[in-house]
Amino acid sequence: MLHAETLATAATLLQAMQARSLTLATAESCTGGLIAAALTAIPGSSATLLAGYVTYSNAAKQATLGVSAETLRQHGAVSRATAIEMVQGALRTAQSDLAVACTGIAGPDGGSEAKPVGLVFIGCGGKGRPVCAHGFVFPGDRAAVRAATVDAAFALLRAELLGI
Amino acid sequence: MLHAETLATAATLLQAMQARSLTLATAESCTGGLIAAALTAIPGSSATLLAGYVTYSNAAKQATLGVSAETLRQHGAVSRATAIEMVQGALRTAQSDLAVACTGIAGPDGGSEAKPVGLVFIGCGGKGRPVCAHGFVFPGDRAAVRAATVDAAFALLRAELLGI
Repeated sequence: MLHAETLATAATLLQAMQARSLTLATAESCTGGLIAAALTAIPGSSATLLAGYVTYSNAAKQATLGVSAETLRQHGAVSRATAIEMVQGALRTAQSDLAVACTGIAGPDGGSEAKPVGLVFIGCGGKGRPVCAHGFVFPGDRAAVRAATVDAAFALLRAELLGI
Repeated sequence: MLHAETLATAATLLQAMQARSLTLATAESCTGGLIAAALTAIPGSSATLLAGYVTYSNAAKQATLGVSAETLRQHGAVSRATAIEMVQGALRTAQSDLAVACTGIAGPDGGSEAKPVGLVFIGCGGKGRPVCAHGFVFPGDRAAVRAATVDAAFALLRAELLGI
């Protein structure tokens, strides 16, 4: 399900975090654990990845990550605002230095004109730093959208690490 | 990272749960999200998989799943007792009908004479039913141990579904 390049990037990111004793948490909706699975494929990752949350349902997003009902109502689960609150919730719940989160529509169902299949918001941030979140529309089928989301999440995490 | 057979099993399990309107939560240590990732590779899985928890650290096992400090101290994180409490915690936190959990040593580091690399405890249970947990020692490298754990977790879940 994951390309060798993705796993190589996971290894590079873990090395960079380990070198600075930074810990990480993940909060995933559309990737459903794929980001955590890629990171934990690398030996020694348990020292860095404190926790991962797969929050598919709105209830799980609220209960586990503290995403507000108001945000979900106003912006929807697939939104920049939700991605940002997922990052903040993961940082708070896991007590990690960094967190990365994604929420999107992997398809084949669930798309609409306003929010098509492939629309994904990815957020990344660190404790005491502003959280950045970007929207993407990835082409392809469910597997392609999920794989592209993992790669983009790693790119955002890399950017965050460059900035620390 | 996952074989086609594993994904086919995931699809079969999801169909069986959907047919009975049963929901699921996962709690993973050594597989680090791989069980959730396999299930969520299947379209429509979001209706069944309410939440997944990747609890690598003892702190995450306690905070997210309510595994007791006493259990971790007395039996260790890789133990039948911890696997059972992870199932109970996932059922409680996600409010799901079923939960599956695993905790083990994927290696290459972390093994000991008493608890070798490849030792994995997998638990499965349903709301209001006793949780069963089994110990395994899987051969091979980190990737092989993780893949074998996913397959065994699915076998336990299948057994649980046959019993409901």
